[in-house]
Amino acid sequence: MAGIAFTKGHGTGNDFVVLEDADGALELPAERVAAICDRHFGVGADGVLRVVRSAALDEPAARAAAEYAEWFMDYRNADGSLAEMCGNGIRVFARYLLDRGLAGSDEDGVLRIGTRAGVRDVVESEDGYAADLGVWRLGPDATVRARHLDVPRPGLGIDVGNPHVVVALAEPEELAALDLSAAPLLDPAPAAGANVEFVVPEEPLVVDGVGRIRMRVHERGSGETLSCGTGVVAAALAVRYFAGEGAPDEWRVEVPGGRLGVHVEAREDGEHAWLSGPAELTFSGVLPS
Amino acid sequence: MAGIAFTKGHGTGNDFVVLEDADGALELPAERVAAICDRHFGVGADGVLRVVRSAALDEPAARAAAEYAEWFMDYRNADGSLAEMCGNGIRVFARYLLDRGLAGSDEDGVLRIGTRAGVRDVVESEDGYAADLGVWRLGPDATVRARHLDVPRPGLGIDVGNPHVVVALAEPEELAALDLSAAPLLDPAPAAGANVEFVVPEEPLVVDGVGRIRMRVHERGSGETLSCGTGVVAAALAVRYFAGEGAPDEWRVEVPGGRLGVHVEAREDGEHAWLSGPAELTFSGVLPS
Repeated sequence: MAGIAFTKGHGTGNDFVVLEDADGALELPAERVAAICDRHFGVGADGVLRVVRSAALDEPAARAAAEYAEWFMDYRNADGSLAEMCGNGIRVFARYLLDRGLAGSDEDGVLRIGTRAGVRDVVESEDGYAADLGVWRLGPDATVRARHLDVPRPGLGIDVGNPHVVVALAEPEELAALDLSAAPLLDPAPAAGANVEFVVPEEPLVVDGVGRIRMRVHERGSGETLSCGTGVVAAALAVRYFAGEGAPDEWRVEVPGGRLGVHVEAREDGEHAWLSGPAELTFSGVLPS
Repeated sequence: MAGIAFTKGHGTGNDFVVLEDADGALELPAERVAAICDRHFGVGADGVLRVVRSAALDEPAARAAAEYAEWFMDYRNADGSLAEMCGNGIRVFARYLLDRGLAGSDEDGVLRIGTRAGVRDVVESEDGYAADLGVWRLGPDATVRARHLDVPRPGLGIDVGNPHVVVALAEPEELAALDLSAAPLLDPAPAAGANVEFVVPEEPLVVDGVGRIRMRVHERGSGETLSCGTGVVAAALAVRYFAGEGAPDEWRVEVPGGRLGVHVEAREDGEHAWLSGPAELTFSGVLPS
């Protein structure tokens, strides 16, 4: 049967259609991506990961990556728009490369992958695959209102390549009762919007040097999702910031789709945030071409 | 690659995983069905259509069907529970049998399919595939409250094998403004629940002998869906009932997922309702076994 072969994968329920296209031959206009990602009329996914050789893709980020990374993650959102980075996506991407024998890790166990946010390192970890999402920064704060929150709450701005606002809640019951079917309202409203994370500490917060939180996330443009890789990192970084001096560099984050880990690593250029957790390939298929 | 081959299909966005299992050899416990239908961790669908020979399935409905219908539609809801009938599902099921050459229509163009609601006829139609959903009846009425409806509205009870309550609205704007993220409240509340359809007439209601309506549906247990086959039939029957003497037997129903047709046919045992419209096979795949 002629058609386009694909593989479906996910990281804690954040799911992707992987299209292997080593030579960059595939035509992938936005409407095609949107049709593939449609959950009723297409395959259904949060985004598409095109697996393409860095040298085969004629765009600046790929050309810049080509010297360091054989493979480039051409990530598309479910609406077909380009995106720079996806914390769960790059972990699924790495698993695909390794499982299919398209790439191997170097002597330090590192697999370098080109992305529009720069070349990123991925390593195998105890809980699956861990990706360096780069240097984090504080971002613009905002007051947050959401359905079933009695009063507006202060939110801490965190930038991990994309903007987040993190709201700390006191009780698991408060987190569970939130209605995120409508977008939380931010004041001041960021021009490009922001993802909003609601977090509660586990009891106790730190066990054996690992900070532990639970969160739910509303992604701009997508609504509530089972998991958001950069959101998980932002949530851990925010609680670490709130906790102040002596807060751990290792975090465990429960999301509706599963459990992820965050590791903060001090480097010359700043604090890097690593995201780790499971990355699964669930089935393979063929789309009519 | 060893695994379970499947085909994905849909009728106006009401989507199904088709599993071909002629000899009834597949183990399909509820948790397996639920895992397959999960939209993030599995293939994703509103239900599973197992294609099995009537003679190969050891259950009363299949044994009763075996004399009349070679193939039996073993339909499962997304949560893994058994269901008697699915108006869009049986049309996709018929397309699968015909496309794969597993069955052909008889000299009258009829393909008979065994279901838990009895043997049903499917024919090819101008708009795709049409299925006889059997005799309809009036059911228990209820008053309906929903978010963004200013006052409770009267709902007409319609039974087409499963229970429906249909509410007529005056304006398309009122239909569009409805928030169906929460289940409408029915008074009195039916013990087993009911699907609730909100309908508005097109302007004019009847053109060339065809009644025309637009609807949205909240399915018990599933929430708002793009399309519900029996709901479309119930909506058309309700408006036909409201319109009284001289109302047409042909209806065109716009749902969020597309357009379907309803045809009422008088037979000896009562008025049969036919549902017609597109049935598409979108991709094939292989699940790990």
